[in-house]
Amino acid sequence: MPENQFTLPKGFSAGGVYCGVKSDATKLDLSLVVSDRPAVGVGVYTKNLVKAAPVLLDRERTPGERFRAIVTNSGVANACTGERGMQDALRMTALVAESLSQAAPHEPVAPEQVLVMSTGVIGEHLPMDKIAAGIPAVVADLGSDAAAVERSARAIMTTDTVPKVRSRTVEIGGRRVTVSGVAKGAAMIGPNMATMLAAVLTDAPVAAADAQPALAEAVDESFHSISVDGHTSTNDTVLLLASGAAGGAPLAGRDLRAWVATLVEVCEDLAVAIPTDGEGADHLITVEVHGCATEADARRIGKTIADSPLVKTAVAGADPNWGRIVSAAGYAGVPFDPMEVSLLINGALVYEKGTPVPFDEATVSDSIRSSRDTQLLLLLGEGHATARFWTTDLTAEYVRLNADYRT
Amino acid sequence: MPENQFTLPKGFSAGGVYCGVKSDATKLDLSLVVSDRPAVGVGVYTKNLVKAAPVLLDRERTPGERFRAIVTNSGVANACTGERGMQDALRMTALVAESLSQAAPHEPVAPEQVLVMSTGVIGEHLPMDKIAAGIPAVVADLGSDAAAVERSARAIMTTDTVPKVRSRTVEIGGRRVTVSGVAKGAAMIGPNMATMLAAVLTDAPVAAADAQPALAEAVDESFHSISVDGHTSTNDTVLLLASGAAGGAPLAGRDLRAWVATLVEVCEDLAVAIPTDGEGADHLITVEVHGCATEADARRIGKTIADSPLVKTAVAGADPNWGRIVSAAGYAGVPFDPMEVSLLINGALVYEKGTPVPFDEATVSDSIRSSRDTQLLLLLGEGHATARFWTTDLTAEYVRLNADYRT
Repeated sequence: MPENQFTLPKGFSAGGVYCGVKSDATKLDLSLVVSDRPAVGVGVYTKNLVKAAPVLLDRERTPGERFRAIVTNSGVANACTGERGMQDALRMTALVAESLSQAAPHEPVAPEQVLVMSTGVIGEHLPMDKIAAGIPAVVADLGSDAAAVERSARAIMTTDTVPKVRSRTVEIGGRRVTVSGVAKGAAMIGPNMATMLAAVLTDAPVAAADAQPALAEAVDESFHSISVDGHTSTNDTVLLLASGAAGGAPLAGRDLRAWVATLVEVCEDLAVAIPTDGEGADHLITVEVHGCATEADARRIGKTIADSPLVKTAVAGADPNWGRIVSAAGYAGVPFDPMEVSLLINGALVYEKGTPVPFDEATVSDSIRSSRDTQLLLLLGEGHATARFWTTDLTAEYVRLNADYRT
Repeated sequence: MPENQFTLPKGFSAGGVYCGVKSDATKLDLSLVVSDRPAVGVGVYTKNLVKAAPVLLDRERTPGERFRAIVTNSGVANACTGERGMQDALRMTALVAESLSQAAPHEPVAPEQVLVMSTGVIGEHLPMDKIAAGIPAVVADLGSDAAAVERSARAIMTTDTVPKVRSRTVEIGGRRVTVSGVAKGAAMIGPNMATMLAAVLTDAPVAAADAQPALAEAVDESFHSISVDGHTSTNDTVLLLASGAAGGAPLAGRDLRAWVATLVEVCEDLAVAIPTDGEGADHLITVEVHGCATEADARRIGKTIADSPLVKTAVAGADPNWGRIVSAAGYAGVPFDPMEVSLLINGALVYEKGTPVPFDEATVSDSIRSSRDTQLLLLLGEGHATARFWTTDLTAEYVRLNADYRT
């Protein structure tokens, strides 16, 4: 089976409709995923001090063990909306609980069993009449086929140009386990900013106490390892529901580790899809850092290189400008011996043990120009920890899109 | 007397020549400032782990009490040049000492009495034959008139479009004291990157033990409070020489504080000239942060807002996009109560105590579009500390210049 063919985990359904939050009626703006049984639910949320109402609500509700649904709207972020914003987020979960209970009265859902995400313009209130009308429609739209999942993924898009769904199925302890996710996030354009949302679903049986650190690890190696412009949103959220529909006792030991590895892979697949979809970007830049004392050190150096506008413009210009890359590493705030630093650009050694190496600039420049992928590999001599970080280049088109978004 | 009319402090001379480090012979590339008597010398240097040879040398020599000269070349940064780079930096100071000693044999100068700065391309060795021929020429060029000072300032320029010289003369304790400086730094374009150099000269009598904290304070409020792209260079250096030629005992108490205030002003004047000279930038953005617990908190929030590409592109597009500004403050890593945050853009209140305020977007947009200066004033409720931070907007022209620099 192809690893990336999309499969919804057993017992889950999904849907997406247009309810009128976005002005363009050819798009979708209300998404729902549902588990047919109570699921363990955990979340990782934005570290921005200014948190949107749905983030505040989900943070209160997770971790928990009886979640049934995640509802998400796009178009309005419900951020910087004060007490009314919190009432609106609460009402979204209550409306979903009510509609699901009506659809299946023998399995009533309580508002507290629903999580909520929003993305879009900041500082505007949700059009709750439209959302109230949309929720029964999206419940009616639920399905478990690929088309239903794609509608669900489309309904959370803002500046994304493609829906992002990824899935992996593996054998763990004699049972088939699936981890699937939908995500949104693209060029970080506009007042919705860098908002990145993801809902990851699995039918594996996982204890809440194991799910939280697993999601934290997966997010560190994926969504926390991408950046387009370093701007942390008010709404960034990654939610995980683990229903146990695959059967059996909660995973432990080697089985748990196998599931965590799959979770990391799915999150990485989803995360890399975000800078890959960077509107106005010509290159996906992978910064790989080896030889650090800790993974956190490696990630911090990778992020500092990835966030440097000088590095990003150099890649846009197909300029193998190693000085910008090495010196960005130097101000990451991580101690290292500069004389142990080496750098490869697209596999070509350009800097070795603190010293420039003669190389054919034209060849390396061509290798950048002729591919959408640019690989920067930085080697240090401080230890054995590594990390990868992904970003986009910085093009004139990016600036044009960001400067023109609103006015 | 106009505060900003340039005056060289008593006993100092300056000069600048072309010696051939730059390929364009219509420019200048070798600069010298000399004190006619031993001066206290202190420095503040780049925090980048990858430090250029002249930075390593000056760090060894300062603080000290017997400095006579600062020699600076532009065109080649003498960074990432290993042991040979350090030998070249040492030789530059020895050549200056030799030439000055020949010019005034009764006052011989030792190599250790000379400091050195370099800016330009990384990873190339200095053309020492050209520099060796240039040093006697720049010694012969020394003068104390405005033209000599301007040549000295021009000779440290790289992507700067204008020379940067600023000066203030004040009465302190019954004597006239002058603080003057030359600086370079502009659009942070190219492999010379964000390199910012400044030489600040004063005829005030200042003890070395007072000069170091004074310069650190002045740099925090000036050169550490500007950024164009957040990229810290391998060569950033601010040097201060205090000769005491104004006469009298070392300043203390209120007199010392008056001199420090003047030093801060001159450094601020020089620092703001750098983003003002941002090639490819249309706006100088001043971020003023009030109501923090500490100045460091306020500066950190100011820097985070100033470094956000989304804020910088919004200003380029004359977009009063308060959501980008408020949310950038939220990820600065400084705790604050979001419900106490207010924001003014060019004097217009757009966000008050955590809530958006209705305002005329067209009017505020016009105020951004019609002026080169944009003022962002963020108010918090954590205390009484304030800070200002300066940056440029991010335009498509900036990207074009940075992507095209080398290839």
